[in-house]
Amino acid sequence: MLRIGLDVMGGDFAPESALKGALLAHNAWSDIFSLVLFGQSNIIEPFLDSNPDFSAHCEAVFTEQYIDMAASPVRALTEKPDSSIVKGLEALNAGTIDGFASAGNTGALLAGSVLKLGSIREDIRPCLMGCLPRPEGLDGIMLDVGAIADTKPETLRDLALLGHVYAQTVLGIENPKIGLLSIGEEPEKGNAVTVAGHKLLAEMSKIQFVGNLEGRDIFTDKADVVVTGGFTGNVILKLSEKFYEIAQDLKCADLPFFSRLNYETYGGSPILGVNKPVVVGHGISSPLAIQNMIWLTYDIARTGLCERIFSALKDE
Amino acid sequence: MLRIGLDVMGGDFAPESALKGALLAHNAWSDIFSLVLFGQSNIIEPFLDSNPDFSAHCEAVFTEQYIDMAASPVRALTEKPDSSIVKGLEALNAGTIDGFASAGNTGALLAGSVLKLGSIREDIRPCLMGCLPRPEGLDGIMLDVGAIADTKPETLRDLALLGHVYAQTVLGIENPKIGLLSIGEEPEKGNAVTVAGHKLLAEMSKIQFVGNLEGRDIFTDKADVVVTGGFTGNVILKLSEKFYEIAQDLKCADLPFFSRLNYETYGGSPILGVNKPVVVGHGISSPLAIQNMIWLTYDIARTGLCERIFSALKDE
Repeated sequence: MLRIGLDVMGGDFAPESALKGALLAHNAWSDIFSLVLFGQSNIIEPFLDSNPDFSAHCEAVFTEQYIDMAASPVRALTEKPDSSIVKGLEALNAGTIDGFASAGNTGALLAGSVLKLGSIREDIRPCLMGCLPRPEGLDGIMLDVGAIADTKPETLRDLALLGHVYAQTVLGIENPKIGLLSIGEEPEKGNAVTVAGHKLLAEMSKIQFVGNLEGRDIFTDKADVVVTGGFTGNVILKLSEKFYEIAQDLKCADLPFFSRLNYETYGGSPILGVNKPVVVGHGISSPLAIQNMIWLTYDIARTGLCERIFSALKDE
Repeated sequence: MLRIGLDVMGGDFAPESALKGALLAHNAWSDIFSLVLFGQSNIIEPFLDSNPDFSAHCEAVFTEQYIDMAASPVRALTEKPDSSIVKGLEALNAGTIDGFASAGNTGALLAGSVLKLGSIREDIRPCLMGCLPRPEGLDGIMLDVGAIADTKPETLRDLALLGHVYAQTVLGIENPKIGLLSIGEEPEKGNAVTVAGHKLLAEMSKIQFVGNLEGRDIFTDKADVVVTGGFTGNVILKLSEKFYEIAQDLKCADLPFFSRLNYETYGGSPILGVNKPVVVGHGISSPLAIQNMIWLTYDIARTGLCERIFSALKDE
């Protein structure tokens, strides 16, 4: 049975949201995988005491420290070796857990994943992936959604390959359509990085490159994987969240599509390009979001995504 | 009475959409401004013949050529001196019309505006502005939405000033809030261009700079003017159109906010940074969109936006 680690100290509403989310995950899937909680004993122990069934099925690793949501990532990693994030990533690297989920601090998780788990290939920069609901059909994905703010053409090529393998492995799409976000359909339209990136993607023999996408193509089935730099990707992700909020205010959030725009449905953003499964949740994660983040982490561990990415990069 | 020029040959549904839109504008506002149509005589004359009241109040400039929506902009401008776009811009430069509106080709309008009207200051690159509905309060604006794909920090500063003057002059906001789109609230968050741009905007004494915005802040009142590069701005504009389409499919397009996401409400994107008022409409412009594009062009001419921008740049 796979073991999924959860950072109890991560997120704006930690530890309450994390603990409640862990309990939801336990109630739903305790026969499928088990949970390992990382956090302070004075928080975890009373919760386990009052939830004996949960307690019987889950483990805990007690850590004295935790990394604040606003902390400077690299400094925090050095200064807080006994934090839930550092201990969780170390356990993942040692193989005592199979995946690790945390609702932040995102920067510390990104930097820590490279430091503790290693990049899957030396020249690959880890990125964050986002799920994209589509009015018709299955979900698609978009990457990068915020890890790589300054993108080179080669970054776009790496993102295409990572997205291709994710769509195949986790989404089960045999021959995913890969699109490059730009501001015109023609290969020569876009900014300099995207125009150069288009050429690199067009040369990749292993992916089905469908060419440039425009903003209006993002939530359609024109592509299963939307490739873009972390600046634009992050703006789109946060704008989509805003649209969900507006739909809520207008009392139409329950409509199909809008309901799927809710970040809680997806739970989090996987870090792709490191050697083990790590998923970062939204800072404001609710218990439902935490529950779904745990499932996503399990799904990535179960399908052997990191090994598949490693192979794909080796064969490139 | 101001005279607004309309390109009858521009847009995917030209000339029908343009002519119908002109008629709508005439019926609504013939006592406020007059229209000058630019296009082929075999198209315009029969329309005027069958609409005598309209015919009595509007003029026409007949052109033999027109620039195709897919044509290469710079080549088309050279090869088609007798096109509706070239003749319209020349009339605007000569002062026989006070503003010019066209639903495309966008590239030809941008390049032609610089060529025929001149940049408002030598080092200013013309940009496209987009209107942003906000669930609460008045509309805001975003720029650039597609003219400048590769942005320098200095571009962001120019965009901030252009947006500031537009918001004051056309929207009537006395002290508009200017925000810089990025991927984190802190000044040091973002890509290299945005981080450097933040410093330049913070040094501007004449604008009210409210700092970085995130994707979720775009449709809020956190800023009246959203400053961003043309790549990300264009993606956002087209993505917003897609959200309107989705709302239509879900039968909730009539809800407040969603209805205001409809591009037809705004009619077009002004070109800012050239010496005269030019507005570019969406390629798919409907008659309603054409009508509103004509109003927007009138509004910019009426308020003396270009003169105000010229003064603001001189005083900088």
